[in-house]
Amino acid sequence: MKKKIKKINAAILIIGNEILSGRTQEKNVAFISSWLNSECGIAVSEVRIIPDNERIIVKNILILSKNFNYVFTTGGIGPTHDDITAKSISKAFKVKYEYHKEAFLILEKYYGKTKFNDGRKKMAKMPRGAKLIYNPSSAAPGFVTKNVFSLPGVPSILISMIENCKRYLVKGSKIHSKTINLYTVESNISKQLGLIQKKYKKFVEIGSYPFFRLGKIGVAIVTRSNSISKLKSVNKDLLKLINTKKIQILKI
Amino acid sequence: MKKKIKKINAAILIIGNEILSGRTQEKNVAFISSWLNSECGIAVSEVRIIPDNERIIVKNILILSKNFNYVFTTGGIGPTHDDITAKSISKAFKVKYEYHKEAFLILEKYYGKTKFNDGRKKMAKMPRGAKLIYNPSSAAPGFVTKNVFSLPGVPSILISMIENCKRYLVKGSKIHSKTINLYTVESNISKQLGLIQKKYKKFVEIGSYPFFRLGKIGVAIVTRSNSISKLKSVNKDLLKLINTKKIQILKI
Repeated sequence: MKKKIKKINAAILIIGNEILSGRTQEKNVAFISSWLNSECGIAVSEVRIIPDNERIIVKNILILSKNFNYVFTTGGIGPTHDDITAKSISKAFKVKYEYHKEAFLILEKYYGKTKFNDGRKKMAKMPRGAKLIYNPSSAAPGFVTKNVFSLPGVPSILISMIENCKRYLVKGSKIHSKTINLYTVESNISKQLGLIQKKYKKFVEIGSYPFFRLGKIGVAIVTRSNSISKLKSVNKDLLKLINTKKIQILKI
Repeated sequence: MKKKIKKINAAILIIGNEILSGRTQEKNVAFISSWLNSECGIAVSEVRIIPDNERIIVKNILILSKNFNYVFTTGGIGPTHDDITAKSISKAFKVKYEYHKEAFLILEKYYGKTKFNDGRKKMAKMPRGAKLIYNPSSAAPGFVTKNVFSLPGVPSILISMIENCKRYLVKGSKIHSKTINLYTVESNISKQLGLIQKKYKKFVEIGSYPFFRLGKIGVAIVTRSNSISKLKSVNKDLLKLINTKKIQILKI
């Protein structure tokens, strides 16, 4: 019996002026995408980076949460005035922005009653009904509101929390991929590659990416598919092309 | 006489499955944003990362080119089947997708007549009326269609071309910024920082970013404004706060 392929997608919404201004190099997209792909069979279909602006956050949350199965936000859940993700999501979904009881207790225990000041208390304020994403490195939890997962912007903290998203996610069919690195230039194979892509149109996605290594020019051919058998067929066709053209494969 | 502040903004549209899948770390946003800020007084207000899909590229080009003064696309201008940026922009603006005479001559000269194959010729196809962005490192030019600037995805090539965008850009007022690095935690200053932000609401943007250095926790306070005098005032207020709280400033 054929296994039915279950496609589940997600969008990532990066919230933060520091990324838009170029001050900070964005690092969470590659990590979240790889994790969703390999651990959950979920494909990231769009990413947006937007400023710390309530009106803009609200608008994007509404659009993305409607168009994709899941949305992952990063940034804006700390204690300062520019951390407005929780408040904006509350506004987007028209639910109250209030203390989450369990988050409040977690943070109070972590900081101790005397050091649990207003800034820190703010990190316990969330959209009503939010579910917690536990944070093993710095206590302040992320949260899930409808299909929106809110994580912090600091990469090391985000990485430590991502496993705790799993319980809330419906898994999709794994996306398999294979990379062949070739010592050639793109234009040497572009025509035939286009024909192979056409043949496997709806089943396999073929990407071609030039690289430079040890002074030599090469091309990485990446094939991605939900179906292992289709992936095998397309790679057979690719090897035929590589042999015909007498192209050297680079083993890494 | 007061100098009038001229605000000009831009969006960046990253086109490429390899970024969305997490295979490749995105590196162009920080470079383009910093360059636009410092060289042209242009602020990047939104970034989107989308797949190599014509329908999706067309939709995003139309939205972003309408909502922002400029749009910068990266990726999808090479010789392979997954390079569909030029064709998609032609479709978005309803202009012919055809050989650009000068681009054709540049590429023919670079590769030599015998090695100028179909894949390479494809890199000379652009939306009718496009203006060229010369490429000093690998010849294939980028192009400007209306307010949309199309650049390659390979960071080293993009960097070598960016200066050649300048002639087509109207400059805005420079965005000045100042960073103070503090040995403290965000929650220690979050309340007062919020009040200072409120005071300078429309003129200065204050960002607060935690960092970890040599085993110590710190906060970078970044202030950004078109007005130098407003930036000076806000930093005076910040220094007052820092002195009152007896916080150590980290000189870098």
